[in-house]
Amino acid sequence: MEKSFILKGDICYSKNPVALDCTEQGYLVCVNGLSEGVYRQLPERFAQLPITDCGSCLILPGLTDLHVHAPQYAFRGLGMDLELLDWLNTRTFPEEAKYADPDYALTAYTAFVDDLKRGPNTRACVFATVHVPATVRLMELLEQSGLVTMVGKVNMDRNSIPALGEDTGCSLRDTQAWLKGCAGRYQNTTPILTPRFVPACTDELMRGLGELQSRYRLPVQSHLSENPSEVAWVKELCPEATCYGDAYRRFGLFGGDAPTVMAHCVWTTDQEARLIRESGVYVAHCPQSNTNLTSGIAPVRRYLDTGISVGLGSDIAGGCHSSIFRAMSDAIQVSKLRRRLVDPKEAPLSVEEAFYLGTAGGGGFFGNVGSFAPGYELDALVIDDAPLAAPFPLSIPDRLARVIYLSDDRHIRAKYVRGRALCLAQSFSSRK
Amino acid sequence: MEKSFILKGDICYSKNPVALDCTEQGYLVCVNGLSEGVYRQLPERFAQLPITDCGSCLILPGLTDLHVHAPQYAFRGLGMDLELLDWLNTRTFPEEAKYADPDYALTAYTAFVDDLKRGPNTRACVFATVHVPATVRLMELLEQSGLVTMVGKVNMDRNSIPALGEDTGCSLRDTQAWLKGCAGRYQNTTPILTPRFVPACTDELMRGLGELQSRYRLPVQSHLSENPSEVAWVKELCPEATCYGDAYRRFGLFGGDAPTVMAHCVWTTDQEARLIRESGVYVAHCPQSNTNLTSGIAPVRRYLDTGISVGLGSDIAGGCHSSIFRAMSDAIQVSKLRRRLVDPKEAPLSVEEAFYLGTAGGGGFFGNVGSFAPGYELDALVIDDAPLAAPFPLSIPDRLARVIYLSDDRHIRAKYVRGRALCLAQSFSSRK
Repeated sequence: MEKSFILKGDICYSKNPVALDCTEQGYLVCVNGLSEGVYRQLPERFAQLPITDCGSCLILPGLTDLHVHAPQYAFRGLGMDLELLDWLNTRTFPEEAKYADPDYALTAYTAFVDDLKRGPNTRACVFATVHVPATVRLMELLEQSGLVTMVGKVNMDRNSIPALGEDTGCSLRDTQAWLKGCAGRYQNTTPILTPRFVPACTDELMRGLGELQSRYRLPVQSHLSENPSEVAWVKELCPEATCYGDAYRRFGLFGGDAPTVMAHCVWTTDQEARLIRESGVYVAHCPQSNTNLTSGIAPVRRYLDTGISVGLGSDIAGGCHSSIFRAMSDAIQVSKLRRRLVDPKEAPLSVEEAFYLGTAGGGGFFGNVGSFAPGYELDALVIDDAPLAAPFPLSIPDRLARVIYLSDDRHIRAKYVRGRALCLAQSFSSRK
Repeated sequence: MEKSFILKGDICYSKNPVALDCTEQGYLVCVNGLSEGVYRQLPERFAQLPITDCGSCLILPGLTDLHVHAPQYAFRGLGMDLELLDWLNTRTFPEEAKYADPDYALTAYTAFVDDLKRGPNTRACVFATVHVPATVRLMELLEQSGLVTMVGKVNMDRNSIPALGEDTGCSLRDTQAWLKGCAGRYQNTTPILTPRFVPACTDELMRGLGELQSRYRLPVQSHLSENPSEVAWVKELCPEATCYGDAYRRFGLFGGDAPTVMAHCVWTTDQEARLIRESGVYVAHCPQSNTNLTSGIAPVRRYLDTGISVGLGSDIAGGCHSSIFRAMSDAIQVSKLRRRLVDPKEAPLSVEEAFYLGTAGGGGFFGNVGSFAPGYELDALVIDDAPLAAPFPLSIPDRLARVIYLSDDRHIRAKYVRGRALCLAQSFSSRK
């Protein structure tokens, strides 16, 4: 019964991409780590479960970060005056090379994981570096955190810097050894194949990763159509691919058997968008990163209208902020600039839509995650938004908007992942 | 000697719009509320002044918010799905009408002023509402806060809602009575003429305000060329004006004898930009508001290149965040999107430039403010950025970038305005 309990408070989650389900002073029922739904009146059959009364706090689903680079947390907010390819060569690769030293990795990854624990995200797809020992340390830290994550040892065998690049054979052998070492080792932390991006991976490496994918049935994460210079470079490097996405697809690393999440998709052509949709690939929309690195604004409205699965990513350190609440407000804001400056026909994202993207939208990559509908894994945030009150009454949707635009980790009073409390606030009364 | 002291720490301010002056473990000398400059070694002549050792904290100039609506603080982060004119009619005007009740105003303005006290801004140009009693309450609260502000009773006699609009004669009489009441009453809080914007002010009202301006020699604040629909409307309303700005200039409310700050200037034509420059009008760049209200991105690079004075504004509640650090990072971010989506020739703002805009740039509207160069009024922030440290050493410019992108009010350890400490941190040692 450890993972069976009830939270009472003002409950809000996405009924669908455009509408909220709000219940004032409702009961969120968790049985064996799964949601049994939200009730205005507690059904008799749950009367035996312990209730935590969260007062007038908001209870929201945990947030999913679909794209984050753990080793880049150390330099978030620095070197933001560069565009993607220069930024990779002068800031990112030299820093990632330091993770050859597992002690450095332990120090830096501890700060990253502590930040994740404090913030509102409960799930994340995480890039590590090429280094297996450091990646294992990261996985151990994440496992201990109680958060649910997919973590990837990065593969890159070309166009890197000498201190970081891998030999193709070595990259594949290391990956296989890492996968064997992971097998059955963690409850909350699973491996995900992580070719860095097409410019950093030879065909041979991609082919080898495709084989590992079919052998181990692994999910895949990478980058797609982020920056115009990068897209042009991929065209040069892979003249035989029909689009950037096709350069992954050709090796079995683009959806289908390989559940795939691709970050960015800012400069995706109609043909590539079709391939994304048909392959069931998730788009990790990273609005702040795309702004900081002068990449542009992804056409999220078009993706949603055509049924592509979209979630949000912090893309630390392209983005500076790990909270997916910030990614929600960034997503709304850039969608307005896209409407004004690119295409007046594309309606901006609403608060409801941004909330959906950061909860059930991205959560879908982890299964039934990001909602309180019955059967979903119970990830929940208890938010004390009293400091964000107004001199007039606020509806739950208004309070949610304030949390998205204005809250920070001070407002998080408790956090549950798969029905397990990560940090129960002291001041809540708990009764049988 | 109360306002004469020395702060020791890692000191940083803008030498000019593109370069920082950084001194590790330097001495910032304040005599009678004015800066005597920053020294690596303390000159003998200051040996008698008390020193506050701020350890390894950053010491930065206080920030200036050139455009903020105090009565809109209450609904920041709400109703962000609307564009300017709809947002004014459905959210803003009905809320501002409540300030007819001075008790409501006191409650709401107290929250606004408390936020300002906690944050990094030390100066602000503030819109109140049309109501004199509420405006006086706001001025009293701001006076007590120790911050230095200009506050405007708003004038609007057309295109408002019945509950808020004024009769022309009444608006002018109220303004005159308010100005008389203010005279000599405050040390830190001064009145500024505040015609809401051209669509809300008849020619008769503008003429009357122009006369008040020449009689009282007052500064002026208003809005200019924010949103395409608004610009088109002004063209209809004032066919005789050569541009939107000219509709203020014709009444003596656009620079010259009337130091003027105009918010937004997103859709300014070349001709209007020339008028702004020739009139010495300040532009309050409000990047987050221009994003939230789908207005667009102001061409700040062009303003800077042509010698127009620019500062930053939070524009609460068009913007949600009062901190001008946030406005700095927003300004950098939207300048990158402008480059990518509007004009590839316009270089994005650098961190140094954004810092300048939020300190000396906007500070200039208050006189010698926003710098530690000798003779400047001493507004200073002591920032404990240790929680933002990296696993490698950070230079002062890197630390500044982190503060701009990542800090919040938790990091502010002390704040000085005109040489007066507003909230001295307990843990600093003070010695003679």
